[in-house]
Amino acid sequence: MSTDKKGGIYSPVVTPFGADLAPDGQRLVRHCRWLLGQGVGLAVFGTNSEANSMSAQEKMGLMDDLVKAGIAPGRMMPGTGCCALTDTVELTRHALAHDIHDVLMLPPFYYKGVSDDGLFASYSEVIQRVGDASLRIYLYHIPPVSQVPLSIPLIQRLLDAYPRVIAGIKDSSGDWSNTQAMLQSVQSPDFNVYAGSESFLLDTLRGGGAGCITATGNVNPAAIVHLYETWQNEDADRQQAALNAVRQAFQQFSMIPALKAAVASYGDDPDWFRVRPPLLALGDAQAKKLITDLDKLGFSMPGLNQKAGHIG
Amino acid sequence: MSTDKKGGIYSPVVTPFGADLAPDGQRLVRHCRWLLGQGVGLAVFGTNSEANSMSAQEKMGLMDDLVKAGIAPGRMMPGTGCCALTDTVELTRHALAHDIHDVLMLPPFYYKGVSDDGLFASYSEVIQRVGDASLRIYLYHIPPVSQVPLSIPLIQRLLDAYPRVIAGIKDSSGDWSNTQAMLQSVQSPDFNVYAGSESFLLDTLRGGGAGCITATGNVNPAAIVHLYETWQNEDADRQQAALNAVRQAFQQFSMIPALKAAVASYGDDPDWFRVRPPLLALGDAQAKKLITDLDKLGFSMPGLNQKAGHIG
Repeated sequence: MSTDKKGGIYSPVVTPFGADLAPDGQRLVRHCRWLLGQGVGLAVFGTNSEANSMSAQEKMGLMDDLVKAGIAPGRMMPGTGCCALTDTVELTRHALAHDIHDVLMLPPFYYKGVSDDGLFASYSEVIQRVGDASLRIYLYHIPPVSQVPLSIPLIQRLLDAYPRVIAGIKDSSGDWSNTQAMLQSVQSPDFNVYAGSESFLLDTLRGGGAGCITATGNVNPAAIVHLYETWQNEDADRQQAALNAVRQAFQQFSMIPALKAAVASYGDDPDWFRVRPPLLALGDAQAKKLITDLDKLGFSMPGLNQKAGHIG
Repeated sequence: MSTDKKGGIYSPVVTPFGADLAPDGQRLVRHCRWLLGQGVGLAVFGTNSEANSMSAQEKMGLMDDLVKAGIAPGRMMPGTGCCALTDTVELTRHALAHDIHDVLMLPPFYYKGVSDDGLFASYSEVIQRVGDASLRIYLYHIPPVSQVPLSIPLIQRLLDAYPRVIAGIKDSSGDWSNTQAMLQSVQSPDFNVYAGSESFLLDTLRGGGAGCITATGNVNPAAIVHLYETWQNEDADRQQAALNAVRQAFQQFSMIPALKAAVASYGDDPDWFRVRPPLLALGDAQAKKLITDLDKLGFSMPGLNQKAGHIG
């Protein structure tokens, strides 16, 4: 692992919505402060943030709220990849204007079966339009959702063309052999491979990867960060198994509503249950089952509900 | 077929882009005028319009251009369905503000495997937020691209809840048995089923459907409209076969670039070749092959290049 590599654990931060389903900047700031206190970075506007259920304007407004509240730009990796070239460019520029240099970028995901040439053209066009040498793009490979995969030859071509800009990838294929191929085949000393969930954290670190960007970073951050920091210890496999058990409790349900149910329940803040359609909030019985199962694992979210943490 | 039913042929109008890839309102107006002259309605901002490669702002700007140029609002059926609830609501309201009442609405398409309850909640939320009794939604079922299908029970449930608003569907499943099921199973006298391509036009009309909304409406409108108007004539099957042959020539290539290549070539206006990434324009050899094959079929686009038609 090159010493130039970045690394760590990021949480695709869940987005709170008000009764009118408008994004709630104040609650988001509060959750981000808690997450930072637990040691995870903020991959705001990821899949688990319901980012694509929000307009570009709504996301830019939340970015403004976070920066205004003093959340460190260097700890953020906002998702800025949209279907529309112009939205992607606008969001990315907005991040840079706030001194946020790391972005996680989906390919345009409406059209399916597009060519590597077309995807290369997409990322190129964004990079050239943004035109800022301080931009660091983390590619976002999540074929189960986007249905638009990023092949290793495409990644290599982007790296060769933009070695300073293409900083890494999040692999949410859910396929360890794919992560392994990225770790082994991509030719660049500074390419940061993040696993898309903590299920592959230990394997990823052992393979020279950078860490993970994981849904459950929203709820179980300290334990995931602990494995990241101590992965060469003897108890690493035991730690990984404990992380898997917690993740399993969430995976019984639709992940985003389950994450929000945990934040709502452990933080005693029912507004957190809300999701935007097409997702549906967890029902009472499901939420109860989730919490019961988590309690059995000794799970907790210490210090979560610090309602005093208002936007300054 | 109920006499209340609407019907006809619509074209998902291809969107011209300038050298800077900005949408070109003037060229769009010109193409829309030509299409209207050929007898097809304007399903602007459809899949073949690269609608999801444009921001909501860009689409609203084009809508303004069209209306300002005197394009009849009653002949438009803009696509307004986006991933983000707020974008869908904003675009739909913008259409209504221009006296455009018919819209073609994709479900939110980022999250996959969502429930019918979640999709029902999505459409409900849009309908309630827009809050305009004159809204007519045509559902847009295009699982090969959106990867988010609209089931017949969901369609029926939406119709039962919003009988005046849910006006019909475009079935771009490419699966005739599905269109047939929609024609036969949906219980509503005023539900308009549009085939997603002219390949199924004759079958759709024979089954009591409303017409079709088809990519090749951009290039072969008069012949498709002719079949629509004379489908009970003896030569209907022969007409259908001739339409299929033209479509086949386009289907050798990626459809959107091929449509644009035809508009560019027959209209002697090379700017039309341009697409936004992740799509790629047809190469010279491909374009030549397309035109050669179309010429062999006696294909033409009479009156296409009327550059005098500036925005007033």
